[in-house]
Amino acid sequence: MASQSCAAALLGGLANVNTTAANFICGQLDAINQKLTDTTYAVDNTYLLFSAYLVFAMQLGFAMLCAGSVRAKNTMNIMLTNVLDAAAGGLSYYLFGYAFAFGGPSNGFIGRHFFGLSDFPSPSADYSFFLYQWAFAIAAAGITSGSIAERTQFVAYLIYSSFLTGFVYPIVSHWFWSSDGWASPTRTSGSLLFGSGVIDFAGSGVVHMVGGVAGLWGALIEGPRIGRFDRSGRSVALRGHSASLVVLGSFMLWFGWYGFNPGSFLTIAKSYGKSSVYYGQWSAIGRTAVTTTLAGCTAALTTLFSKRLLVGHWNVIDVCNGLLAGFAAITSGCSVVEPWAAIVCGFVAAWVLIGLNMLAAKVKFDDPLEATQLHGGCGAWGVLFTGLFATKKYVAEVYGSGRPYGLLMGGGGKLLAAQVIEILVVSGWVTATMLPLFYGLQKMSLLRISREDETAGMDLTRHGGFAYAYHDEDDGFAKPAMYMMGRIEPSPQANPL
Amino acid sequence: MASQSCAAALLGGLANVNTTAANFICGQLDAINQKLTDTTYAVDNTYLLFSAYLVFAMQLGFAMLCAGSVRAKNTMNIMLTNVLDAAAGGLSYYLFGYAFAFGGPSNGFIGRHFFGLSDFPSPSADYSFFLYQWAFAIAAAGITSGSIAERTQFVAYLIYSSFLTGFVYPIVSHWFWSSDGWASPTRTSGSLLFGSGVIDFAGSGVVHMVGGVAGLWGALIEGPRIGRFDRSGRSVALRGHSASLVVLGSFMLWFGWYGFNPGSFLTIAKSYGKSSVYYGQWSAIGRTAVTTTLAGCTAALTTLFSKRLLVGHWNVIDVCNGLLAGFAAITSGCSVVEPWAAIVCGFVAAWVLIGLNMLAAKVKFDDPLEATQLHGGCGAWGVLFTGLFATKKYVAEVYGSGRPYGLLMGGGGKLLAAQVIEILVVSGWVTATMLPLFYGLQKMSLLRISREDETAGMDLTRHGGFAYAYHDEDDGFAKPAMYMMGRIEPSPQANPL
Amino acid sequence: MASQSCAAALLGGLANVNTTAANFICGQLDAINQKLTDTTYAVDNTYLLFSAYLVFAMQLGFAMLCAGSVRAKNTMNIMLTNVLDAAAGGLSYYLFGYAFAFGGPSNGFIGRHFFGLSDFPSPSADYSFFLYQWAFAIAAAGITSGSIAERTQFVAYLIYSSFLTGFVYPIVSHWFWSSDGWASPTRTSGSLLFGSGVIDFAGSGVVHMVGGVAGLWGALIEGPRIGRFDRSGRSVALRGHSASLVVLGSFMLWFGWYGFNPGSFLTIAKSYGKSSVYYGQWSAIGRTAVTTTLAGCTAALTTLFSKRLLVGHWNVIDVCNGLLAGFAAITSGCSVVEPWAAIVCGFVAAWVLIGLNMLAAKVKFDDPLEATQLHGGCGAWGVLFTGLFATKKYVAEVYGSGRPYGLLMGGGGKLLAAQVIEILVVSGWVTATMLPLFYGLQKMSLLRISREDETAGMDLTRHGGFAYAYHDEDDGFAKPAMYMMGRIEPSPQANPL
Repeated sequence: MASQSCAAALLGGLANVNTTAANFICGQLDAINQKLTDTTYAVDNTYLLFSAYLVFAMQLGFAMLCAGSVRAKNTMNIMLTNVLDAAAGGLSYYLFGYAFAFGGPSNGFIGRHFFGLSDFPSPSADYSFFLYQWAFAIAAAGITSGSIAERTQFVAYLIYSSFLTGFVYPIVSHWFWSSDGWASPTRTSGSLLFGSGVIDFAGSGVVHMVGGVAGLWGALIEGPRIGRFDRSGRSVALRGHSASLVVLGSFMLWFGWYGFNPGSFLTIAKSYGKSSVYYGQWSAIGRTAVTTTLAGCTAALTTLFSKRLLVGHWNVIDVCNGLLAGFAAITSGCSVVEPWAAIVCGFVAAWVLIGLNMLAAKVKFDDPLEATQLHGGCGAWGVLFTGLFATKKYVAEVYGSGRPYGLLMGGGGKLLAAQVIEILVVSGWVTATMLPLFYGLQKMSLLRISREDETAGMDLTRHGGFAYAYHDEDDGFAKPAMYMMGRIEPSPQANPL
Repeated sequence: MASQSCAAALLGGLANVNTTAANFICGQLDAINQKLTDTTYAVDNTYLLFSAYLVFAMQLGFAMLCAGSVRAKNTMNIMLTNVLDAAAGGLSYYLFGYAFAFGGPSNGFIGRHFFGLSDFPSPSADYSFFLYQWAFAIAAAGITSGSIAERTQFVAYLIYSSFLTGFVYPIVSHWFWSSDGWASPTRTSGSLLFGSGVIDFAGSGVVHMVGGVAGLWGALIEGPRIGRFDRSGRSVALRGHSASLVVLGSFMLWFGWYGFNPGSFLTIAKSYGKSSVYYGQWSAIGRTAVTTTLAGCTAALTTLFSKRLLVGHWNVIDVCNGLLAGFAAITSGCSVVEPWAAIVCGFVAAWVLIGLNMLAAKVKFDDPLEATQLHGGCGAWGVLFTGLFATKKYVAEVYGSGRPYGLLMGGGGKLLAAQVIEILVVSGWVTATMLPLFYGLQKMSLLRISREDETAGMDLTRHGGFAYAYHDEDDGFAKPAMYMMGRIEPSPQANPL
Repeated sequence: MASQSCAAALLGGLANVNTTAANFICGQLDAINQKLTDTTYAVDNTYLLFSAYLVFAMQLGFAMLCAGSVRAKNTMNIMLTNVLDAAAGGLSYYLFGYAFAFGGPSNGFIGRHFFGLSDFPSPSADYSFFLYQWAFAIAAAGITSGSIAERTQFVAYLIYSSFLTGFVYPIVSHWFWSSDGWASPTRTSGSLLFGSGVIDFAGSGVVHMVGGVAGLWGALIEGPRIGRFDRSGRSVALRGHSASLVVLGSFMLWFGWYGFNPGSFLTIAKSYGKSSVYYGQWSAIGRTAVTTTLAGCTAALTTLFSKRLLVGHWNVIDVCNGLLAGFAAITSGCSVVEPWAAIVCGFVAAWVLIGLNMLAAKVKFDDPLEATQLHGGCGAWGVLFTGLFATKKYVAEVYGSGRPYGLLMGGGGKLLAAQVIEILVVSGWVTATMLPLFYGLQKMSLLRISREDETAGMDLTRHGGFAYAYHDEDDGFAKPAMYMMGRIEPSPQANPL
């Protein structure tokens, strides 16, 4: 509200009121409105910042999940990749990743402002938004590192991880999430794809499929770990070394997902314009937390009973993976579906994971974390699910009224068509960029570690030693592996130069 | 403020003011008030949602605490129950648990609306409230699974856990927390119990005693683990397998308790009506965080020195249990007592736990997590403590003025009487429901595992293998248990069909 | 806005307006302004409380980092000290620590109000502020316990820890952070040091240097652990027992640092007075989260490549320490420097840590957690860094306009001079208090454990047993250490009296 129009309104109406009094009232109203606006900024930033912290905590979850899922001899290696996803991702996203993703105004393909956060913040984005998007960017690389765990050279990791976090992923997020993206539902610079744009709210496609498809090519080109399939071609489980770390990681990911999905609203202090007291973004955010929870819970339970029937025991590792499959799937539609639909989403996601795992075993595809199946496969299911179950009311509230919505909810096929486009385009783009990269690394003998290193484990040969030492050398305990470690490792402190 | 009354007030006073100008001012004030209300919703939902996430994080804490406190051979089992408490609890609380608990308007015994979240949200509750209450519901089941750890059939777990989370606990929370509950201090549909209602702010009785009493009957009926008491009847410690996990879990529970206790205010943007600048729910919430902290700290220190005197060493496991005992006790009165009283609460809680542990050893009661003693015993102490130390001022602020308060604070015996009623009723209700259930399961041979399974450990026999594999099969390390595992386990990936 | 002045303004201007109407409008405006103020309190307290919870989570991070960095035989010991830092710190900070630190009005040296939180809350501070400062106080003691790990008597720990948390640290925080402190940039009761005061926003000096310098003297007086340097004086790495715990702890510390640094603003709903929409404390807080992130990421990457060149492998433990070095350094200036400067800060911090570690090895200084080097050394660098890189604009916004700022940013040498004073004064004060204490304990034979205890490990001899038991006694596994434990340990449950 501008002061002048306020005073004019008052003066126009009250012939006897002098300018001083009108200005006084208007000044008061102005000050109040300004304070209200400021308070709204404070609330929204509080919400977004703590959501970003939760998403960051997922990196801790990934690290523990990955560590527990690999053999003890490769624990240091996989944890290092998880720490570096965050650390290297911080620098690359600051230098150019964020600019590629959200550097508008730009064309529909790639952003071009805010390199190194220059001229930042702007009216379109503040630091909290950058932090939030960084936390998303590092998640994609984390997914891929699971797929190619236990057999990848560290230098290859450094190369593909920087490329993925700094270029491949930012481009995808530009397409679907920035206001310039050609397929974005919030596009302001052109017509919406199919009058709708793709609805991938928190990134079943943008984050999970990107990580999963990249992992697919990496794992395919590297081939299975030694011993993963025996001579007659049968699948042999190479069990991770700590179920406790797997459960710890899964729970941390669950915890962090409350930042990932509900946090993707970015603001919370936004009314949806009706008079009902429980009708605004705060309520939609709560609903999103509930749909997220229900999808994960359903997928976990479905997996529990399915695996009991198929394999014969109750397995917590499988249940954790099922849980995450449900989360990865609901991530796309979490904000625009009813809670009951989230249960459908989770149920199907569990079976998608089980089915893809069977297929992987059959075709001798080895992904130590099931990341391709879980994030790629269930991510793709989630993108489709949104096209089927998004409701008219929620799409209108979250994205704007008059748009296509879910096919099964009576909203026609346009949204579903857009969602199919996303699956094709994401798969194509990640394949077009990551397949040549992995292939090139392979050709240059930079991708897979040697047979000797793989058998001995990367921690001993490349990372300074075994991750654990539960017993001292001097306690009379026979530890061949430890002695070997003692020989190989040049202790950092011992020889600082 | 309605626009019409505003305009009327202005027009009445200002004879010369025309309607347009009055409407303008009133419209401005209306818009501002609406925005303020919306902002308040946003703030309160932000507060409640992040509190819910913290309470959820307690499930991670429980999982790690339980895992570390059992022997390695039962780690997968106990962690699976913790994951399922959350996952199965998510579905059952969505389908009917929430309806039983908060489905008002209803009678004083059980709620009857919002099954499957139909007709939700309502003016009385939004999604964030559902999520928060779900996170509470799953905590109760987690407590019980500790009591009967290391010897319970998984199918028995599935049955009692669903029953507890979906029915027993929701009823109790209806009685004491819903606005229809017969003993609720916020009751709107009838007179308050003893003119007061029970003050169990965050659930020393509603959550901790329910879990603890259920655990009592489970552990009693199952009897002690093999080897827990030797032939001459002496107590033999069956130490947990990882103190690191115990400490990790305890710290996570501490962290989450800041959602559990201060979060139970549900809203933060509420003035207490005085002009003092630091006088509103935000300050009461901070005080609640402080009383919670002080009770836990005092109990931990008391345990440290007591056990040093009694047993002769400084034991971190005991200190962690003491800490949690202090938290379980302060949970009831945290919002209505002075910080110094919280110190009294924690000091006594530590001794309650120590005394009950001595008693348990004497009567050969085996609760691997001390959950009965800790959550049941210290929970009961906490309920009484509130009846003794609640202050007039804080009861008036949090629950309304003119109510009975703590006996030792000069508030008479009515509140204490109500608190005693809670202890009796909760104990009675949980006994009446869970004792027959456990007894029936026992009679049908569904409760306790076989002697062979108990000796071998449930992970090998029921859950797909040992939780840890720190050494590869091929490193020359003798691992009988591992080889056994290799034989027994049908690898999921190996035989997908 | 007072009602009377509002009505007077209106009545003065509007001759024909009667008092009733003026009062009505003014009453409305008053009510709105009061509600706005209350909402602001709610927002600010929400922000501060959740920040406090995050800082508390750092204690969990410290516990896991410390546990993983020591040998398995001392795990129970170090974790107990971490739990007690929080628990004992809770009581001592409540009883007198907070009073010494923030008990104004007082002199510049030490506070003198609010002992035991009497007459609390006050207009100057609410409970959330107490909780936040408590979470800071316990961090300092945690740092020191790392320096003297694996060789310190528990009774010595109890003494120095209480002294440090309850007296030494609170005094320092009084000097630099309270409004009465002689070197505080927010001083209200006298002139600012060099017209500036020390800018140590979240405590590179106040927290990290205090812990680090105390650790320096403790570790120096105790001397190295047995076997840390061989007979010819060469450094021998005594590796920690679990890299997983180290990574877990480091990630938790990273997570918690978002409460530590951005949280130190204490409030978020504060405009910086310009009309730009993204211009208020909420934006400065986001920027602070970004500078914190970038400094840690840069230091981690710098360490990764530097150690690869120096030692020959990629080491996740080193990377984690480098990461924390970056955080410790940026903590002082995080709110007043540009993001690019944070990269400089992290780069130098990594080299400070590497250099000091080399120096430590050369002079046979043994700090198991590198806490002296990391928190002391990089903390000091961070204090200097602020004096070099603080920008005019940000100093003006955060502390007030017209003050000196960073030397390299053209702000002259006054701020740098103040920062140098902090380094000298903190070092001097901690030395003057902690050196005599450690020396006295040493003289009374209360500081270092016996040679036998150190070889056997403190867990077996003092803390009730080994932290881990991955295998049962009956699985045919040879475990000399276990049997020894079985003999030594008087089981708590076994002999309750």
